[in-house]
Amino acid sequence: MSNKSNNNETQHAAGNGLLHRRSLLKASALGLAGGFLLPAKADWRSVPGAPQSTYGSPSKFADLRREQTIGHPFGPAAGSSSTPLQSLNGTITPNSLHFERHHAGIPNIDPAKHFLTLYGDVKTSLRFSYESLLAYPMESHKYFLECSGNSYRNTFPTAQNLTAGSLNGLISGAEWTGVPLHYLLDEAGLEKDANWIIAEGADASGHTRSIPLHRMLDGAMVALFQNGEPLRPAQGYPMRLFVPGCEGNISVKWLSALKAQKTPAYSREETSKYTDLLKDGTAEMFSLEMEVKSVITSPSGTMQLNRKGVYEISGMAWSGASAIRTVEVSADGGKSWATALLQSDNQPNALTRFRIPWQWTGQPSVLQSRAIDQKGNVQPTRDVALQRYSAGSFYHYNGIQSWQVSSDGMVKNVYV
Amino acid sequence: MSNKSNNNETQHAAGNGLLHRRSLLKASALGLAGGFLLPAKADWRSVPGAPQSTYGSPSKFADLRREQTIGHPFGPAAGSSSTPLQSLNGTITPNSLHFERHHAGIPNIDPAKHFLTLYGDVKTSLRFSYESLLAYPMESHKYFLECSGNSYRNTFPTAQNLTAGSLNGLISGAEWTGVPLHYLLDEAGLEKDANWIIAEGADASGHTRSIPLHRMLDGAMVALFQNGEPLRPAQGYPMRLFVPGCEGNISVKWLSALKAQKTPAYSREETSKYTDLLKDGTAEMFSLEMEVKSVITSPSGTMQLNRKGVYEISGMAWSGASAIRTVEVSADGGKSWATALLQSDNQPNALTRFRIPWQWTGQPSVLQSRAIDQKGNVQPTRDVALQRYSAGSFYHYNGIQSWQVSSDGMVKNVYV
Repeated sequence: MSNKSNNNETQHAAGNGLLHRRSLLKASALGLAGGFLLPAKADWRSVPGAPQSTYGSPSKFADLRREQTIGHPFGPAAGSSSTPLQSLNGTITPNSLHFERHHAGIPNIDPAKHFLTLYGDVKTSLRFSYESLLAYPMESHKYFLECSGNSYRNTFPTAQNLTAGSLNGLISGAEWTGVPLHYLLDEAGLEKDANWIIAEGADASGHTRSIPLHRMLDGAMVALFQNGEPLRPAQGYPMRLFVPGCEGNISVKWLSALKAQKTPAYSREETSKYTDLLKDGTAEMFSLEMEVKSVITSPSGTMQLNRKGVYEISGMAWSGASAIRTVEVSADGGKSWATALLQSDNQPNALTRFRIPWQWTGQPSVLQSRAIDQKGNVQPTRDVALQRYSAGSFYHYNGIQSWQVSSDGMVKNVYV
Repeated sequence: MSNKSNNNETQHAAGNGLLHRRSLLKASALGLAGGFLLPAKADWRSVPGAPQSTYGSPSKFADLRREQTIGHPFGPAAGSSSTPLQSLNGTITPNSLHFERHHAGIPNIDPAKHFLTLYGDVKTSLRFSYESLLAYPMESHKYFLECSGNSYRNTFPTAQNLTAGSLNGLISGAEWTGVPLHYLLDEAGLEKDANWIIAEGADASGHTRSIPLHRMLDGAMVALFQNGEPLRPAQGYPMRLFVPGCEGNISVKWLSALKAQKTPAYSREETSKYTDLLKDGTAEMFSLEMEVKSVITSPSGTMQLNRKGVYEISGMAWSGASAIRTVEVSADGGKSWATALLQSDNQPNALTRFRIPWQWTGQPSVLQSRAIDQKGNVQPTRDVALQRYSAGSFYHYNGIQSWQVSSDGMVKNVYV
């Protein structure tokens, strides 16, 4: 779909203003007469500022907060909060803004009184303190974590006019550091036929999930650090299971027990919840891997474009199956697509930032992104994504997100 | 130096207990009779925990704080604070723990009242608001930032018994996202012979540095986001210059002006400070690139090993010249060296985590790490590092850090 415009400086990558990055971009510098110019003096140039601190915080001018999306009527502590995707850039979610999902609130665990027990079909049962785990070999990897219910509001019959974070913010990205599980399983010695590991958290919900052994041997870790510092309580302090590429709830927080056994546990949270009701009336269990997906985070829902001209369209893509191969962007509701630039450190099961310049002429436009992973999985349209599931089923929704830009510059969620 | 021990399970990589990673590691699981075992019940299993929050914080059990290293007697706000390297793992420094260095405290800037002016030897002077910069193409990269005075206490005649962070913590790592400077310089149009860019900050110190043009065209950016979220005030909110691989003070915070000119400005901060006095009495100016360096962060100064057995030796390496090629670790004060495992996303000018297992027999030991970068630069011993400079000169110190482990398990800084 590439074609050159008459203007030598601008090269179009797809319809309705998507540009090649090599275009000469004059995004929005403010007009100014040439010549020598002294910077304006402001209050903060005249008096010393605040001193250093032990643990820093954001500017009061930056409006950074997770959005409260659910609070259970009978248990306000059992809920979730979303990452404000529209306020962020890059591929890391700061720990203070990582999404939360708790089934019985956030326990305040003293690591000196917390242990991880590894038992069941093993040759030697083992118990690990926090201190003892710190002595094991560790690894650090950038991984996404996504709630299986992320973007559930886009399964509703009517498009909700909300922010990118409120709609799609049960996804975050971090560098996770911990002890690969194979070290611990090797030390305990698995019995033959121990094909499942049952993970239990120390919170008041007794959150328990069954995970196939092969996932535990292939990249799973007991995570102890997130973005450099010890896990936050909301993320499982002092230790959590982390299973890359899979729905968040199997990366059991406040991890207290791992039991090896022949069969799944069929726990409450994998029967009453986290099971997918399909169109044909059957239920799919242990659908753990998260599908290929992307969302444009800027421009995005409830934003306002204040001028015509060049903007950077930017967003995030991820897949539980592999690394991201390509992200395509459309500015004309899917009629034409251009390939976005991906960040260079695109790793398997990690958030990938994509970017493409866009020249907005003031015309009504529909912005979309479509991710394709290294295994060739393609993010589906909303209609196709909904086809597989029964009405009311809302896990694992990965349809294309459409943002409509009106001629007045308002951006909102639409179904196209 | 590799040799096998009599024990089939343990393979030595160098003297005094450094092990190959493929050794069967039984680091420190606590003793436990085999068989079925129920996890212990604790208070936090019985009652719901805390609800979700808008902006999270660490556990009260995790003692995470920057250490105050300098406060100027006449201006307490002009000082620095260090990253507590010994409490962290992975390669990211959380924004709340990124080191700080201010010459006149932290200004509290309203982004709506802040502008960046690009002027001097350019065809068109330009002015950028915060909002206007957000529309330009951005990039995200993991980079280290190091104060040129980092580790200055190791230039003192007597080894200071302090933590890794207090000694070496004026280094941090983050994912920085911003607008590559070449877009802005292209738009303004540099005059011929405009070989220097003078960067000025909006703080009360009027911090000003001169940077050679080639460094501004090769990777420098106006950074707007750090680890995903908008810059913190202590790191230059709403915008800072970021020059990868170079001493921190040229990445001018609260960036308000960039002036192109033929010569350096010879500003106060590059004449009275940040100039290196050499052994022969001459002074070296504009020594901007940071040298290859590493430090073991665990075990490290003031820690206590409470048992004999296997530990993971872990630390960070970096170089302003390139990516890290190798980190070697010695457990016998430099007599023998083993190659450590590096993290896979080892990028140029970024922090690299290194790790190697170590079996401590209870013998007094001296732990050291030695980094080698892709250009072949080798981190020198302390003696060699000090040779170049006049006594009292303390910038750009990159000597090998030695930690002595006594037979009682105490770890402390030593010169060997």
